[in-house]
Amino acid sequence: MSSTISRLGALATGGLFSLSLLAQDAHAQATGFPSAQESDPSAIGWMEGFPPPPELRITNPDSVFFSFPRLRWSVCHLREFLPTEQVSRGLGAPIPFDYALDDGIDAVTFMPLRGEEEMTWEESLYANYTDGMLILHEGRIVYERYFGCMDEAAQHAAMSMTKSFTGTLAEMLVAEGTLDDTALVSDIIPELEVSAFGSATVRQVMDMTTAFEFSEDYGDPNAAIWVYNAAASPFPRGEGYEGPNGYFEFLQTVGPDPEGIQHGDEFHYRTPNSDVLGWIVSRVSGMEVTELLSDRIWSRMGAEQDAYMTVDGLGTPFAGGGLSAGLRDLGRFGQIMLNGGAWHGEQIVPEAAVESIRAGGNLDDFAAAGYADLAGGSYRGQWWMFNNDHGAFAARGVHGQTIYIDPTAEMVIVRFASFPIAFNSRIDPTSLPAYQAVAEYLMAQD
Amino acid sequence: MSSTISRLGALATGGLFSLSLLAQDAHAQATGFPSAQESDPSAIGWMEGFPPPPELRITNPDSVFFSFPRLRWSVCHLREFLPTEQVSRGLGAPIPFDYALDDGIDAVTFMPLRGEEEMTWEESLYANYTDGMLILHEGRIVYERYFGCMDEAAQHAAMSMTKSFTGTLAEMLVAEGTLDDTALVSDIIPELEVSAFGSATVRQVMDMTTAFEFSEDYGDPNAAIWVYNAAASPFPRGEGYEGPNGYFEFLQTVGPDPEGIQHGDEFHYRTPNSDVLGWIVSRVSGMEVTELLSDRIWSRMGAEQDAYMTVDGLGTPFAGGGLSAGLRDLGRFGQIMLNGGAWHGEQIVPEAAVESIRAGGNLDDFAAAGYADLAGGSYRGQWWMFNNDHGAFAARGVHGQTIYIDPTAEMVIVRFASFPIAFNSRIDPTSLPAYQAVAEYLMAQD
Repeated sequence: MSSTISRLGALATGGLFSLSLLAQDAHAQATGFPSAQESDPSAIGWMEGFPPPPELRITNPDSVFFSFPRLRWSVCHLREFLPTEQVSRGLGAPIPFDYALDDGIDAVTFMPLRGEEEMTWEESLYANYTDGMLILHEGRIVYERYFGCMDEAAQHAAMSMTKSFTGTLAEMLVAEGTLDDTALVSDIIPELEVSAFGSATVRQVMDMTTAFEFSEDYGDPNAAIWVYNAAASPFPRGEGYEGPNGYFEFLQTVGPDPEGIQHGDEFHYRTPNSDVLGWIVSRVSGMEVTELLSDRIWSRMGAEQDAYMTVDGLGTPFAGGGLSAGLRDLGRFGQIMLNGGAWHGEQIVPEAAVESIRAGGNLDDFAAAGYADLAGGSYRGQWWMFNNDHGAFAARGVHGQTIYIDPTAEMVIVRFASFPIAFNSRIDPTSLPAYQAVAEYLMAQD
Repeated sequence: MSSTISRLGALATGGLFSLSLLAQDAHAQATGFPSAQESDPSAIGWMEGFPPPPELRITNPDSVFFSFPRLRWSVCHLREFLPTEQVSRGLGAPIPFDYALDDGIDAVTFMPLRGEEEMTWEESLYANYTDGMLILHEGRIVYERYFGCMDEAAQHAAMSMTKSFTGTLAEMLVAEGTLDDTALVSDIIPELEVSAFGSATVRQVMDMTTAFEFSEDYGDPNAAIWVYNAAASPFPRGEGYEGPNGYFEFLQTVGPDPEGIQHGDEFHYRTPNSDVLGWIVSRVSGMEVTELLSDRIWSRMGAEQDAYMTVDGLGTPFAGGGLSAGLRDLGRFGQIMLNGGAWHGEQIVPEAAVESIRAGGNLDDFAAAGYADLAGGSYRGQWWMFNNDHGAFAARGVHGQTIYIDPTAEMVIVRFASFPIAFNSRIDPTSLPAYQAVAEYLMAQD
């Protein structure tokens, strides 16, 4: 039973952003994946029928709902597998976007990183198993397409883009003076004094320069990643389970870095930081991350749809990866960030919060982490800075999720995707240069 | 493990409408329940804190989340315990109600059934552990109050009011000619030929005059109610579980009435009928109940909020009790039914469907079921007819849920509640005469 629970936990929660590679079909790995068109969930017919026939079922107890090609359906249906909490849009009328569709974008060409042949924008959408693509230019929608499980009314897994929402909420509280980013975590969350996180500063958590033991050795059943995943599971546990229950209990078990690395020494992209940050913003604001996100952002931006977040067994939202939302609603948020926090005459995010993010994190720390395709970048307030000549920055999530903000081109790109494997390093080569090419194209149209 | 699964299943699904009495605290039963004010979840502080302290936690694995007084919190938070499917409101602007608040309603008095002392309307709200109360008169909101876990943005468990939505969808398909209510169930769902349901007509299912074996002997671990509850559980099952998986598989196991009662002989209010009906409307329409409800009703009535339904382990919505929704959105639906199906110039529900429901079911069948406080009534298309002199009819759910429609007074009452026990017979004495008194009061104001 405990291995079942572990697998379920992995797939339910933490595993959503890290384990898909393991879960996927070995045959597909060996021979190459079916194409975006071949793996289109509506072509396969997943979960169609009353009831769906066994071969078309995607169910949680099977513990493979987030493996390719099933994940292409599941990314639009997480609430059907897992307990969730609403991120309310409020009860008013949505604020619609203006449209200025540009039918030249599909033909924009670019050279993929390390590529030998040019690719068109439209080809890149299939190469990346895109589910939804939105491009805003000067605040108007110039491009919008849906594929796979997605349409304009769907909510798609945002994966680790969730972190950027948690980070923005933290930056907002810092800008307002209600959260001191130089404070120690243990000053705000005394329960974490026993943990490696207690002695980190809030800023180190926000920028992921903390040091702690976090083995991702999936072959070791005692590795922290498994403990984390089991803790995060919202499902009834097998008898005899004695591990931590929920994100907050897990965080209290985290020990110091075994190699003696200290807080502030290095950047390491590790999700438990975002869970600590979720705890911090909740303790400071008195609201769950879902409530705070609704109160501060979702209910103030004229969102079309509620969003939602997965929760652990104690009802704690997964601040590091649990968000699902609509494509255009993420476009609204991206546009707010592009606008320095302003939206239809209201300052949704304090300008100082946006400036703090755009100022970026430590370049050396980031360089040491060795992200080849993000060289010269940094990580700040749970956002990725590219430090390219357009000043672009992004929220990013595995399997290809992004909110890509290009201030110079006044462009926001939102992509939902279900790329077969969980590494953005496989997706960036046909994404980042494509975004730059579209930015240049749009600027040339002005 | 199997008893854990059974209990979880019970509380997760079927048990939501039948087992709370068993689960509640024996002390409270012996001494009387804490009052509505004493059991107010915000006064208790359920789930407050990051994390909530153990004594304030309400979690699913505890399997008591739907016992009083916890249920007073849980009725607004089902999605946080269970997998769910969205019932989309669409993406447009809500259609707001006009208001004509009447502050005289609270002082309206009535004599409870079998009572000796008059009670005011306002007193009745506390007597019934009301969470939300909406009164529409001539299409405008004359009264609206929230208590307990509820506010205007909350979604509350509708419990068996769900059946009336499933029934209305079926009546709509019948009125449109796409569903023949004289057909045998097995003609539409061949998989049910092996079941007692196969030989019933669609109409018998709609009106609950089917005959089948359905023991609700909770002391017998093999009783059908337990098999049903286990089948309905969306949680991973213990090894060795060999029972049916999901509502549809359960329905195939249902045998004939052991005492030889035949379809059409008697009215028996039994939830599996609604699950059969959900299967029928899905098979005929090609849509899940959630999709059909959104497509035909929710997205066409200017709803303020998405609704949602709980699902079994195969993603089948619980057509007999799984809906959660906002108070005013149920008011919109009630007003549509009062209007003969029309709403802001559009015919949402065919008039013939509303007329079929209002024509009522067989009076003798209903009388034989012995509902003392509903004497003279009937059951038709999954709605309760009172056959009183105002022609009132209602959707009803355990713990006090109702959409009460009084055509003579042009009045719709929607109540969400979390009465400590699951019997409406305890709630009707302070509800039905109160509704009649308010109807008469409103008519006198005209």
